Order: sequence, then C-alpha cells, then structure tokens
Amino acid sequence: MNRNVVFTFFLFCFVTICRGSGTDIALDAKATLLHRIDSLNLLIYTCLLTLTVLTIWVFKHRRVSWLHETGLAVIYGLIVGAIIRYAGSTNHITHINVNPEPGTTYNLSVPPDMLRFHFPASLPITPGDSPIANKTYAYSFRGEIVNVEQNEIDLKATFDPEIFFNIILPPIIFHAGYCLKRVDVNLYAMIFGESVLNDAVALVLSGAIQNYETRYSHDGGFEISGFLGAIGDFIGIFSLSLLVGALMGCLTALISKFTHVRDWPLLESALFVLMSYAAFLIAEVCELTGVVAVLFCGICQAHYTYNNLSSDSRNRTKQLFELLNFLAENFIFTYIGVSMFTFPKHHFDPWFIIAGFITSMLGRAVNIYPLSFLLNLGRKPPIPVNFQHMLFFSGLRGAMSFALAIRNTVSEARQAMLTTTSMIVIATVVLQGGAATHALDYLRIPTGQGSNEESEALPYRDVRSLYHATDTGESRSRMIVRWSNGAKEVIMPWQLNGYDDTPRGGGDAGGGQKARLARVWGALDSRLLKPLLTHARPPLTETLPAFMRPVARLLTTTHQYTQGDNTLRRTDSDSDLCIDDPQIPSSIDPQQLWPGLVDTRISVEGITGSNI
Amino acid sequence: MNRNVVFTFFLFCFVTICRGSGTDIALDAKATLLHRIDSLNLLIYTCLLTLTVLTIWVFKHRRVSWLHETGLAVIYGLIVGAIIRYAGSTNHITHINVNPEPGTTYNLSVPPDMLRFHFPASLPITPGDSPIANKTYAYSFRGEIVNVEQNEIDLKATFDPEIFFNIILPPIIFHAGYCLKRVDVNLYAMIFGESVLNDAVALVLSGAIQNYETRYSHDGGFEISGFLGAIGDFIGIFSLSLLVGALMGCLTALISKFTHVRDWPLLESALFVLMSYAAFLIAEVCELTGVVAVLFCGICQAHYTYNNLSSDSRNRTKQLFELLNFLAENFIFTYIGVSMFTFPKHHFDPWFIIAGFITSMLGRAVNIYPLSFLLNLGRKPPIPVNFQHMLFFSGLRGAMSFALAIRNTVSEARQAMLTTTSMIVIATVVLQGGAATHALDYLRIPTGQGSNEESEALPYRDVRSLYHATDTGESRSRMIVRWSNGAKEVIMPWQLNGYDDTPRGGGDAGGGQKARLARVWGALDSRLLKPLLTHARPPLTETLPAFMRPVARLLTTTHQYTQGDNTLRRTDSDSDLCIDDPQIPSSIDPQQLWPGLVDTRISVEGITGSNI
Repeated sequence: MNRNVVFTFFLFCFVTICRGSGTDIALDAKATLLHRIDSLNLLIYTCLLTLTVLTIWVFKHRRVSWLHETGLAVIYGLIVGAIIRYAGSTNHITHINVNPEPGTTYNLSVPPDMLRFHFPASLPITPGDSPIANKTYAYSFRGEIVNVEQNEIDLKATFDPEIFFNIILPPIIFHAGYCLKRVDVNLYAMIFGESVLNDAVALVLSGAIQNYETRYSHDGGFEISGFLGAIGDFIGIFSLSLLVGALMGCLTALISKFTHVRDWPLLESALFVLMSYAAFLIAEVCELTGVVAVLFCGICQAHYTYNNLSSDSRNRTKQLFELLNFLAENFIFTYIGVSMFTFPKHHFDPWFIIAGFITSMLGRAVNIYPLSFLLNLGRKPPIPVNFQHMLFFSGLRGAMSFALAIRNTVSEARQAMLTTTSMIVIATVVLQGGAATHALDYLRIPTGQGSNEESEALPYRDVRSLYHATDTGESRSRMIVRWSNGAKEVIMPWQLNGYDDTPRGGGDAGGGQKARLARVWGALDSRLLKPLLTHARPPLTETLPAFMRPVARLLTTTHQYTQGDNTLRRTDSDSDLCIDDPQIPSSIDPQQLWPGLVDTRISVEGITGSNI
Repeated sequence: MNRNVVFTFFLFCFVTICRGSGTDIALDAKATLLHRIDSLNLLIYTCLLTLTVLTIWVFKHRRVSWLHETGLAVIYGLIVGAIIRYAGSTNHITHINVNPEPGTTYNLSVPPDMLRFHFPASLPITPGDSPIANKTYAYSFRGEIVNVEQNEIDLKATFDPEIFFNIILPPIIFHAGYCLKRVDVNLYAMIFGESVLNDAVALVLSGAIQNYETRYSHDGGFEISGFLGAIGDFIGIFSLSLLVGALMGCLTALISKFTHVRDWPLLESALFVLMSYAAFLIAEVCELTGVVAVLFCGICQAHYTYNNLSSDSRNRTKQLFELLNFLAENFIFTYIGVSMFTFPKHHFDPWFIIAGFITSMLGRAVNIYPLSFLLNLGRKPPIPVNFQHMLFFSGLRGAMSFALAIRNTVSEARQAMLTTTSMIVIATVVLQGGAATHALDYLRIPTGQGSNEESEALPYRDVRSLYHATDTGESRSRMIVRWSNGAKEVIMPWQLNGYDDTPRGGGDAGGGQKARLARVWGALDSRLLKPLLTHARPPLTETLPAFMRPVARLLTTTHQYTQGDNTLRRTDSDSDLCIDDPQIPSSIDPQQLWPGLVDTRISVEGITGSNI
C-alpha cells in the first residue's frame, strides 16, 4: 500500500517531465467530468431508493394502503425525471456530422460498429496556445437518432440497458425460484408460482416470435409451417433453458455434498452465488433464456443444495438474495419513472399506446375467466366470481416487461414498444396498485390487514395482498404442528379448507391425474435425486437395484450411512427458507432452522406440509 | 404477469403487420449478438471466479502455501486472457474512416463527444433485396486509437473502467472500514489500518498532483506556491471527504436510533447499504474522494450505527459485505490478469516499466526502515530488523492502484501508466506473494500455520499472514476474558507481550502524546457521540452541561433512560463485528452477539480489549 504513495510521487515526476499535449490534458478534464456525471446518476438513484425505503417505512408504520410501495418508487422516479429534464442544466454534448472518407468501400446493410476520426487535422479549429498532435479517435455505435433534439439529454440519469438484463434481473428471478415452494397447492403459492412462470414463458415466447420472421416465414405473413416452427422453438428453448438451470443447481448440490467446502462458509456462499449466476449466463450465451435457467436453478438450489449448506451459508444466501431482490426491484421501478423523461429513445405513438392498453386488458380477461372456469370444473371449493374479478384487476408487476422492452431500442418500432410498455407499467403499478384496497372493499373480499407478515418479503406484495384477500378470514395464527413418520409437518389454517390437495392426499376425480404425476415425481425425487444430491435418507444403497450397488455406495456419504433411522429423516428443508417459527420443538435438528431468528412472526411462506 | 404473454402476442401482430425495414432487422440481430458477447464476457469471469474459489478451497484443504490466493486469481486471468487473445475467434469489428461534413465549424481542442452519420445515403453499399431507409445514427467517443490492430479485440472480455471505480471498489473499502477496530494497537491492526489509510492517502495525493499543473503551476515546473497549493488541496480534500463519510455514518446512526425502522430489518439493511453507498457518491460528485468517504463511513457505521441495528441487520450487513468484498477483490485480480492481454489500451514503454519497478521498491524501503526507526525510539519491544525486512518484502495488494490506473486511459501517457501498474501488481502478487513463506523461513520468523483462523476474512490475507508471522509463537488459543466496569474485555495472547498499549494504559514517554489525544477523543466519544448516536449509557442528560438539559432530553431515548445502571453498560459492539466466541457468559445481552453462530472459531479480528 505504501507503494501507492510512492507511485503518486513517481506519477508526479512523470507528469512534470513528460507533460502531455494540450489535447491530452483537455481529455483528462473531460474524463473527470464524465466520471462525475456517472457518479451523479448513481447518486440520484441511491437517494431515490433511500427516500423510497424511508417512505415505505412510514407507510408501514402508519398503515397507509392507498398507495402501493412500488407505485411510490415509480412516482418518485417520475418527479425526479421531470426535474432533471426540465429544470436541470444541460450537459451540452458536442457533435458534428461526418461523411465517409472518399473512396471508402462498405458492403453491409448495417451501419459500421466504429468510426475512426482524425483530429484535429481533418477539422479547422481555433488554434490553442500549445500545438495539438494529430491523433485518431474511435467512436462506437450508439443507435438511431430519431429526434435530433433528444441527444441533449443523452447522458442524463440513464444506464446501459444491458445492465438491467445481466445484473438487475437475475437476482430477482433467482430469489423467486429460491423462495418458491414445490407443488404446495394453496392459492398463494399458485398465484406466486404462476406469475413467475408466466414471466419465463413470456420471455421465451417473445424470443420465438422474434425469430418467426427471420427463421420460418418467407414473406412475414402467417404460414402453418412457420407457426409450428416457432412453437417448436418455444418448447425447445424453454426445456433446454430449464435443463441448464437444473443442471447447474444439481452440480452445485454435488459439489457441496461431496467436498468439504462447507468448512469455509465464505467460499461456500461465493460458490453458490457464482454457480447460480453462471446458469443465467450459460443460457444467454447459448441463445437460450437465462431467466428460465436462473429460475429453475433457484428452485433446485432451494430443493437440494440448500440442505447441504452450512448454517452460515444458508443464512447468508437467503438474506443476500432477499436484500438484492428488494433493491433491484425498487431500482427498476424508480428507473422506469425517471427514464420516462430522460431516456433518449422514447417514441410516442398514441395509437400504439392505446392499442397496447386495450389488448393487455383484453388479454388479462381472456386469461383469467376461461382458466378459472376450467379450474372450477375440478376444484373444491371453486374460485368465487369476486375473486376472479380481483385476479383480473391485479397482478401485473412490470419489471420483466420493462427490462425486455429497454433491452433493444435500436429502431423506431422498438422505441415505440419501450414507450408503450413503460406507460402500461406505470399506469398499472400506480393506479391499479393504489386502488387495490378499494377494489377489495368493492368486491366484498375480506382482508386480513394488520398482520406483521407483510414486513417480510416485500416483493410480490400484490400477490401477497391478493393472497390475504383469498384468506377465508379464519385466524391465521392457528396452525397445527403434527408429526408424520418422524417428520415435522406444519399445517396452516388455509390448508384445512380444501386448498391443500398434496399428492399423498389422494384427492378427488379431478385432481387424480395431477396427483399421479406428482406421485411419480415424488418417488423419483425422494428415492433417487435427494439421496444423490443431498445427505438425505434413505441412501441410494437402499433405493437403487442391486446391480447398481457399487455406484450407489460411491455416491453415498458416511453421513448418510451413519444417520440413524430413528433420528429425524427429514433433511429436506425447503420450508426452512422462509419459516421462522418459535414453536418448533427443541428436539429438531438445529441445522434445520435459521440460526438466531428471534422474531415471532410466522411468514406466509412458512407453509410446509411437506412429506417425503 | 399474464399480460406479458398477451404482450408478446400483441408484439407478434405488430411485427407481422408493420414489418421493419431490412436495416432494422439487421440491427436487431446485431444487438442480439452484442448481448451474447456481453454475457460471454461475464460468463468468462464467473467461471474464472468459480475456478478460483474451488482452487482456494483445495489449497486450504491441502495446506498449500507456495502460491498466494490472489496470485492464483491473477494467473488464471493471465492464462484465459492469452487464450482469448491468441486462440479465440475474432469478432470482426466493422469500421470506416470518416471526415467532417464540408463546412463544419468546431472550436474546441477536444474531439467532439458524438459523431452523426447518415447511413446508407452517404455510403455506396451493395443494395439488398429490401429498400433501406436513410437514417441518422449516433456514434459516441471511445478514446484514442494507438495501435490500429488493437481495436480488433476491443469488445473482448473488457468492461467499462468506471465499473471498477463506482461498483467494485466501494464495497471493498467499506468492508475494510466496517471491520477496522479503533485505536486497538496490536501489530495486525496497525498494519491493516495503515494499509487501508495508505490507499486513501495515495488516492487523494494523486488527485492533488494531477491538479498541480492545471491549477497551481504556470509552466509545469516546480514552484513553491504551487507546491503549497497542492498540499493544501490534499489536506482540504482529505478532510472534507472524511467529513462527508463520517456525517453519512452519523446520519444513518441517527435514523436507526430515532425511528422504528429496525422493526423491519429488510428496510433497515437496505437503508444501511444505500446510505453508505451515498457517502461514496456524494464525495465523488463534489470532486472529493469517494474512497476516503466510504472508508470513514464504514468506520462510523461500525462504531455507532451497528449498535442500533436489529440483530438481523447486523448479521446481514456483515455477511453481505464480507461476501461482496471477497467477490470484488477476486474479480479485480482476475481482471488484471485477463485485461493484460485483452484490454485494447495498453502501451508498453520498457523504460517506464523498469523505472516503475525500481521506484516502487525504493519507495517501500524509504518508507519502512526510517519509519520503523522512528517508531522504535518510543516503542517497547522494538520492531526487530527481520520483521522490518519482512514488512519491506510484503504488503502490496494492488486492487486500488489498478482501479486508479484503468480509470482513465484516454491518452498514451495514461495507457503507459496502466500497463506499468498492471505489471507491478502482477509481479508483486504472484512472485512476492508466492515467496512469502520462504521469506519468513529465510528471515527466521516463526509462523503459526494450521490454525483455522484464516478461513474467515480471506481479504487482506497477506497482512494476516504477516500478522501470523509476528506472532511470538505462544498458543493463540489462550485468551483471557476479564470484566472491567461491567464490560467484557477479551485479551488475546499477543496483547500480553507489549503490543497492547491502549490509551488507558497510560504508557511510557514516547506514547504519551498519543495517549493524551486518544483520551480526549475517548471522552468526547463516550460522553457526547455515543449517547447521541446510539442507545449507550450514560445518557446526554448526565453528560451535557445543565443549560443544555432540554436538548439533551430530546436526544435521549426511553431505552437509554430505562436501561439500568447495574445492567451491562457496554452497548458498544465494535468487537461483535468479527467475534464469534462461544465462551461469552450467557448473562450478556443477546443482541450483542451474532445470532446463531455455532462455530467455535475465534477470529483474529475478535480482538477486543475495548474500554469505554
């Protein structure tokens, strides 16, 4: 470190002796200015997020419900965006128009990636006091200029859209997967899982549609073969992405099971984070869908790897992703607000915007009512009509659609999509989110306000509020802890009134098919995957056929052998992810619990009822 | 979420009906390609980091000491960088040379920020099957092209250097501050603290020197007034940055003390992270030094805010920054390796590189030996000569100097600095880091290998190894817990042999001045700052003069009043940050301890001996 001090002295001598040209010094000043602008941009968002956090706290403290918290982030963003645009001083961007050098040949239909510009030789400038050396500078492609005025605010409070896709979105999606409970069939889990899966499906579907014209259609019109090709694309990409994510999850599980990396929790946590992120990136690099990969990676990490982690790493990864998810989500919503005014690549096309609003509402209706009707055919109790209205009214988040839209704004058509998407997101979050409570009242859906549950897991709040809405009004704090095959099983009150049709329950005629599938999966999971990927019992030596005994022995740890049958069999701890239940008997394996959780809250996500 | 699905159908119709021009579709494909390249870059580093983590684990497991872990990251980086450069396929970057449009006027000595280019009208291209609309595209300034060949690898495995400064460095520095123990004067803390402070000083000093020519000197030569001006700059910027950081820390402490935000630990943690990051950004925006600000912010957060946090937030923030620090550090070292081959803005100047190596070695010697001599005048026991040699031999990290060097590479001189800095960092980390064990042997410094302590806090490993080297060889596991004024005090064995001269100890003649200063600060801290910023006793109503009683009453919480005098007075928990000590008596306030830590390790950083 001392060397740094020396280094600056060295630099001092260097600067004094070999002074740069006037242009170099001016460029230095320019670079410093750009750095300050970057910092200012980040500071604006940091302050906005701080403000949002403080206001969320005040709202929670005072039990304000007329404004949704994400709506708050958007509104703050809009206000600051407008201030930046109309009141802020303009960072004047110098620009000139250029032509190719005479005799240049170029044979592509896209503009070149880079322009090379000789300065100042090619430009008659006012001579300074020091001679300026003629140098060549590189300029890289930015995008189409639609409105010549707009590049004035080009550098204001905007970020490279790739940041959203590669940095902000993955932790949000991973967290959703990491907290998702497997096939627990209460309404909350249904809505939550469906909303996450829907994001993933939408993403893959949009990719397939984008490829439709270039890959399958001859003239861009509708063709049966092209349509089938696009559907094949969708299925292929979705399943391959799922596979990439699941494999990375399983690989992490294997590493954490068969090495002693858990002796160094910091290394273990780092590995966990890196492998999960790699799932996203591998899928993206292979032209698959990273979001799907990271979602299923999260599910696998929760279902398998989590059981092998040290308690330190369990705690750390859960808390890390919870915080990252919270910050990332609020950042996106703030950014949507600010960028509405400052992002230079908006294109307002009124008819397109109107059509966007109408079709998205229509689509929601077409989705909710027929699907509810189908579900109600084999469902007891059926989803009431006022619940369906509420489902129609609520549900949109928008972070994903915004990230999709801002990802690519090279053409005018793309820019129109971004503008429309932003407006739909803002309208949904602010208006529909804010009116949710009134809608609940109007539809006479009983709400369960005042519980402390909402304090955890702020994301997916609307889903959560909706869940509260579907609660039958019984006291949520009444919960049953029972023991089944030596495994603790917690039954929440809402599981008592028909929403709980877990595989083992058998169920009625309508749920028969599903229960069969779930049973096959359950057997595969508990007899092959869990014993292979975790330290769970029974070991593979008991479940695999005799001729595979040597392989099975190799894949079974001492821990799995020595674990007595009379001790707790259930090393599966999906449910630990979110449960913090002080009533759990002290005989339970302490590693199953979050260390040191002293809160007495019972999180909604602490729904278990798991059976192995 | 359903709306997303609808949206893609909508998009589908849109695409089918209003098909874009041929150029738009080609641009879409281009954007997709660029996204894949971005993902590939990130994937390369994620895999490198994963590999590094796994190898670190193997090294720890097998107790390998001939290669330093950061050296490992650099070497992996170098190998992959070379592969990318020489074996990878080239992403051909299309480029043309351009001239200004006839009649352009321009009157600055720097190249314009942006070029506007009409395409394809201005360029005779081979006509495609669809008509291409003439559009205007923006190109933004990238930097000087030194070697025309080099821009071929422009897009390969490199990131915007601003990312290092604004994203990667702050958590590293904050973590250093957050884990720094106040005026604990053992050798480890001395070296650790000095190395961090040195980084901060170097950064401010380099800024002052850069401003020297532009602000204070007339012809760039040495001038007394200019020299004094630069020194004034240094002092001013350093103290203002310190102030910004400390104020943000205190503000966070006040918010966490006087609001109930701790009831929502997620919000609390988010606030903590955001306020700390804001300290960095505010300083950068004000042309101060963000690194100094975030360092002192970290120190204040640990000293004050930490005491107000909920146990969940304490745990979360500590673990979060530990992980971020680990990943960020290893990322930088990997990047140094890769960028040596792939960063297009290297400039190899052999004489400058040789001079760099010589001066940095000389500087280290000039620093260590005279300072040790001065210290030894008033120090018992003195620092032995072989320890001084070891201090000379070890200590450089390089993350900071690299981030400084890569921040600005617009001119050739800057590029030469980057290359030299990179080479010094690589040589130091790989060669000196790897040879450290042999040097210890050669200098006959006893080492304390085999303890589990190193498993925590991988960063600052060399400092830590050095500390181990200075251990006198007594059993480190022998530690004394004693009670002083109701406060737990842990005395580690190395504090028994003279290194421990905490202020209260009085000390000998040499340390008298320092002890006085420390005593004044200690009084201010315990009688004004702690009661103001935390819930610590005695309350301000007891320590402030009578006429300020109303203000004091306002600033004292009920918690501070009701806390009995006979209960534990010490709500200061600096030491909790890193201690995980199972021997602490159960009568201690449970909030003082990390929840749920079941490890039996005693971290080196668990040195306390704090006194209030």
